[in-house]
Amino acid sequence: MSTGKILVAQGGGPTAVINQSLVGVVLEARRHHGIQRVYGARHGVRGIVGEDFVDLTQETSHNLELVANTPAAALGSTRDKPDLAYCQEMFKVLRAHGIEHFFNIGGNDSSDTIRIVADEARKAGYPLRCIHIPKTIDNDLVLNDHTPGFPSAARFVAQAFAGANLDNAALPGVYIGVVMGRHAGFLTAASALGKKFDDDGPHLIYLPERVFEIDRFLLDVKATMERYGRCVVAVSEGIHDATGTPMLVKLAKDLERDAHGNVQLSGTGALADLLCEEIKAKLGIKRVRGDTFGYLQRSFVGCVSDVDQREAREVGEKAVQYALWGNRDGSVAIQRSGTYAADYALLPLEAVAGKTRTMEDAFITASGTDVTDAFRLYLRPLLGSGMPDAFRLRPNPVEKVLNR
Amino acid sequence: MSTGKILVAQGGGPTAVINQSLVGVVLEARRHHGIQRVYGARHGVRGIVGEDFVDLTQETSHNLELVANTPAAALGSTRDKPDLAYCQEMFKVLRAHGIEHFFNIGGNDSSDTIRIVADEARKAGYPLRCIHIPKTIDNDLVLNDHTPGFPSAARFVAQAFAGANLDNAALPGVYIGVVMGRHAGFLTAASALGKKFDDDGPHLIYLPERVFEIDRFLLDVKATMERYGRCVVAVSEGIHDATGTPMLVKLAKDLERDAHGNVQLSGTGALADLLCEEIKAKLGIKRVRGDTFGYLQRSFVGCVSDVDQREAREVGEKAVQYALWGNRDGSVAIQRSGTYAADYALLPLEAVAGKTRTMEDAFITASGTDVTDAFRLYLRPLLGSGMPDAFRLRPNPVEKVLNR
Repeated sequence: MSTGKILVAQGGGPTAVINQSLVGVVLEARRHHGIQRVYGARHGVRGIVGEDFVDLTQETSHNLELVANTPAAALGSTRDKPDLAYCQEMFKVLRAHGIEHFFNIGGNDSSDTIRIVADEARKAGYPLRCIHIPKTIDNDLVLNDHTPGFPSAARFVAQAFAGANLDNAALPGVYIGVVMGRHAGFLTAASALGKKFDDDGPHLIYLPERVFEIDRFLLDVKATMERYGRCVVAVSEGIHDATGTPMLVKLAKDLERDAHGNVQLSGTGALADLLCEEIKAKLGIKRVRGDTFGYLQRSFVGCVSDVDQREAREVGEKAVQYALWGNRDGSVAIQRSGTYAADYALLPLEAVAGKTRTMEDAFITASGTDVTDAFRLYLRPLLGSGMPDAFRLRPNPVEKVLNR
Repeated sequence: MSTGKILVAQGGGPTAVINQSLVGVVLEARRHHGIQRVYGARHGVRGIVGEDFVDLTQETSHNLELVANTPAAALGSTRDKPDLAYCQEMFKVLRAHGIEHFFNIGGNDSSDTIRIVADEARKAGYPLRCIHIPKTIDNDLVLNDHTPGFPSAARFVAQAFAGANLDNAALPGVYIGVVMGRHAGFLTAASALGKKFDDDGPHLIYLPERVFEIDRFLLDVKATMERYGRCVVAVSEGIHDATGTPMLVKLAKDLERDAHGNVQLSGTGALADLLCEEIKAKLGIKRVRGDTFGYLQRSFVGCVSDVDQREAREVGEKAVQYALWGNRDGSVAIQRSGTYAADYALLPLEAVAGKTRTMEDAFITASGTDVTDAFRLYLRPLLGSGMPDAFRLRPNPVEKVLNR
């Protein structure tokens, strides 16, 4: 006899819309007569092993709607990366509670976890339906047009660079903004969508998909300064040299070698600061500023793409529909239809699990320091409605009198 | 005979609403039949000395409205701090162009500049009306209830901490956010307005108005971790020890001493990183993250207080009215009426020029690490309408079955 119990969990870095997916699961599940209980695991897989569940059937739909519009993970998240033994523990708990459907909202680690749990259930002959619901600001899930959370983070990055560019135009110099994304440059590339006029920044974009050479970087900055009298740069935290060594490690090492010391330079602001130091030292430019967008870009309250909100809700809803009306486990994926509508598919877990997508070559210019129009067309509809716009005074110069 | 020429300039760090003040001046001036020409100086006082003017009479009102809603300084800004000789050069140019009214939008440096220029004009018997229009995210002008630009930056900081708090609740640990404001802690204190529930962060707020002691700081963080299992900290970039030495300099020095090296640790991310290192090293806490809000907090496109927009427009408009209908120079100031409406006054330039306001004692708790309700009541109406709100799932724990 069916227990009618489902469990939902959230994993990895929070996003602006991950609670939309949670609420999509809960509200859709509660509409089905076969579902008796909707449980949520506190702090992801960790809450499953620790039997730390909340009953979401005892939450009002009104409050669920308010939570859906709140960023970060309402159930709590975790950085635990379960191995086989951990997944076996999880399965024991799911079985003990009579869970029949398990939904895990997260990135490619979360999809791999759910793949292993599904294997365990199959081996034990226990009827557990396992669905992975995509979420990551890195946009690095293969076979997905894009992932919920990325559009809102991309919107933050685009808006941040639009503002940084205006600030830099008012007080010229070099500005470096460091953006999240260790292996995939999508979020850093989103900075290009903050650009409007030809001479707007970001003038240079450095992605982890291309090898970073400090000498080339300094030449690029110098050339941009000569051309525009200012330079706005978007840098991925994951930039690395030809051997794959992250620039943060490389630059920090050089600094240590200079000082014959043992200074630890870990911490989020270090890469921006080190690149700024290089520019000041090697190019002799005085006004050089660096910002590291850090946690602001993934959880800022009040900068959300309405398209992202809607889609994050839908992947949760679709997950329940696939689980109840389908007969296989899988990973929900957004697919693009026209310009622009979202469609959904259920992919095999092993097709997505543990794999990392990076930016396609067609999205990066030959110079390696800008994005193509193909990328702009890809990203623009995802940013949603009401994107702020920037305007300039038109040039109406007054004739000089003293002319000194 | 009157030339009917006015000049407006923007100075110092850009804000989200400084262009509102510019457009307030231009549109109000253009309504007066006595005004023939409205000039704008490119890059503030530097553009005056260099005779780099644009004719704002030849700009459409439609485009002016669009520029008003664009952050940063549309005319360009400058960090030049004019001395007497510089001001004398400025006056020569103003006289040569027959400027009769000079409006300078900026902080207390800008008001001091306009005070000196006004002195020069008086000494030369040249009829120049000089008005300072307030602007600074630091909120550090004396005799002003608050300054345009501060409410929008405060809104950004409050929203950023609301999001950072949610992120930190999902993935617990220590989070430090470093906020601008070298001498005045208003902007850092605004982080408190991102707090909703009792256990929300920021749990600790460190202001430049109080002496910062690293040992006390570590004890505070430890106690907060023990109480809530997590800790969100707001830190002003201007925190300093009892001798007035900035903590950035002090901590960087300690680090150098440890390493027997010569490492330069200037750069915007350094303070957050150094405080994080202290916590990791001394308290043994693993998950410690630091963000420096940097330029995002003053020019982010799309996070503006509508109250701030309106008031920034009005100070520009009032400046023109004071100049045309009054008979004295001065500095426009916002005064508070009821809860809440803004009123305006024209203060003597020497009452504002070159003076720095810091946070009143009544705004800081006895502990020195939180703000009072008086501060919350002071700031809340300035943040404007449509502040995002955060919601939680209510606790409905599920009984454990395995209970391991």
